[in-house]
Amino acid sequence: MPVLLLDDDEVRARLDAPTAVRAVRGALLAAHEGGLDAPARVRADLGDGHLVFTAGRLRAEGLFGFRAYDTAVGAEQLVAVWGSDDGRLRAVVHGDELGARRTGAIGAVAVDAAARPGPIRLGLVGAGAQAWTQLWAIGAVRQVAEVTVAARRPERAQTFARRAAEELGVRARAVREPEQAVRDHDVVVTATHSATPVLEADWIAPGTHVTTLGPKTLSRHEVPAALGDRADVLLTDSLAQANSYSEPHVLPADRMVALGAVLAGAEPGRTSPEDITVFCSVGLAGTEVAVAAALHDAVLGRPEGSTVAG
Amino acid sequence: MPVLLLDDDEVRARLDAPTAVRAVRGALLAAHEGGLDAPARVRADLGDGHLVFTAGRLRAEGLFGFRAYDTAVGAEQLVAVWGSDDGRLRAVVHGDELGARRTGAIGAVAVDAAARPGPIRLGLVGAGAQAWTQLWAIGAVRQVAEVTVAARRPERAQTFARRAAEELGVRARAVREPEQAVRDHDVVVTATHSATPVLEADWIAPGTHVTTLGPKTLSRHEVPAALGDRADVLLTDSLAQANSYSEPHVLPADRMVALGAVLAGAEPGRTSPEDITVFCSVGLAGTEVAVAAALHDAVLGRPEGSTVAG
Repeated sequence: MPVLLLDDDEVRARLDAPTAVRAVRGALLAAHEGGLDAPARVRADLGDGHLVFTAGRLRAEGLFGFRAYDTAVGAEQLVAVWGSDDGRLRAVVHGDELGARRTGAIGAVAVDAAARPGPIRLGLVGAGAQAWTQLWAIGAVRQVAEVTVAARRPERAQTFARRAAEELGVRARAVREPEQAVRDHDVVVTATHSATPVLEADWIAPGTHVTTLGPKTLSRHEVPAALGDRADVLLTDSLAQANSYSEPHVLPADRMVALGAVLAGAEPGRTSPEDITVFCSVGLAGTEVAVAAALHDAVLGRPEGSTVAG
Repeated sequence: MPVLLLDDDEVRARLDAPTAVRAVRGALLAAHEGGLDAPARVRADLGDGHLVFTAGRLRAEGLFGFRAYDTAVGAEQLVAVWGSDDGRLRAVVHGDELGARRTGAIGAVAVDAAARPGPIRLGLVGAGAQAWTQLWAIGAVRQVAEVTVAARRPERAQTFARRAAEELGVRARAVREPEQAVRDHDVVVTATHSATPVLEADWIAPGTHVTTLGPKTLSRHEVPAALGDRADVLLTDSLAQANSYSEPHVLPADRMVALGAVLAGAEPGRTSPEDITVFCSVGLAGTEVAVAAALHDAVLGRPEGSTVAG
């Protein structure tokens, strides 16, 4: 079987949201059950920056691999996946699209686990690639009745809303103020680079689910500390990664629960329609490998003799 | 320009020895001149083994990348190369062939720099992939008048000799005893996994060049400590890597000279036809990246606008 080599355009064309969500859900469960080796990232010094590797091994699926990116040049990322039964390289995916889509898929799994059931009004603060892939993936787990998007540059929010309507068939509108994208929404996603809060905690109504993708340390945070006080449930995709930040979180890390544990039923998630749930997305290592492997199987089929999970 | 993806068969078909030798010579010179960032290897824990990454950046050539291999599964290796000017992934090479050929090319550069001029009688102890690629690459720097090969399993030496005659057109013969492949040769290469010496130092005549590829620590070494006493010049492709072994070398590391420094004329190599020169091959990091990039340019041409070295 040949090695699958894909670039950003091919990822956009060939990866569908249900596939990505399914792969990521499997990896999150595996992380909870001890079936995912996802060691801390390692770095090789390139002089004025680093090559950074996040590795992952999914035991039940018989997969391992890594994502590589650099901080010296800002070059294309690379994800490589091998089968651990036959030791064959299966897929190499380069560019930025796979990483953004797996982050979207992680966010969608959190929405599925923690948001109230039924169609949602989705509010986005931020109109970049990360906001886009959250919307793209959430569509695989919930009917999106309407999406509202706010961005620092209004024209980007307008472009985003047009694209959402055209490509995803979602009712979408751009708004001027973040507050308009936050109040009266069932799910709110902040996907910014902002070092200061883009929302106020009391804009969040009871029952809302919030995902924060951007900065969330004490010195730089897109959501306020008061959101932690209002949250009934705080989730993250990786407790280990959340606790390995060089600086404390603005949200209380000691209250965070692993999303995988909620999926497995080992920890409660939402227990009331009035709960406010907050998901701190940190990008569980190994999930890129899971998505690249799922993409391989979707395009080329599952390799003969490979381990079937479960 | 598309990304070049090559497997072992394609490397065998498309990489010629002069190209590999030229690429490796450039990297060795760059290492001497400070133009190669080749940090210590980094490891990510996979539970019952590691993913290991050796990174390299060639500044003048505008290249960076890494080799990845694992100690958990023993899967195919992967070498990836990016252009640092445009940040585009250029080539992905998987399998074991590229690494063996770059090791061959390093050995050939050492032969070119340190062996006596003129046609050589080449003696090989070991008949595996590493011995093969030494012979393959040495042919790009010296006329090989004859190759003699000894192996622990005689039939492997015979197969090797037949293949050398057929594929490389070299006069080749298999011998029973390592001594027959060592005495009266101009260049001797040991390419074994042996933990005990496969030759005696006094088999090495004045004027001989020796390359050792296999184990060379105090507790496990394919060449004897006495070879260090007999050697007039001790070379290595990387002083940093030679000195980072967890155990001391059986040959005196404090007398070792960087091959790149000899190529640059900054250190003397052979100063007399009677000198015995010994090359301790450790596999300078970054050389895989240089060879993969040269292979890319040979197959697809040099990318437009890319930095031209020198």
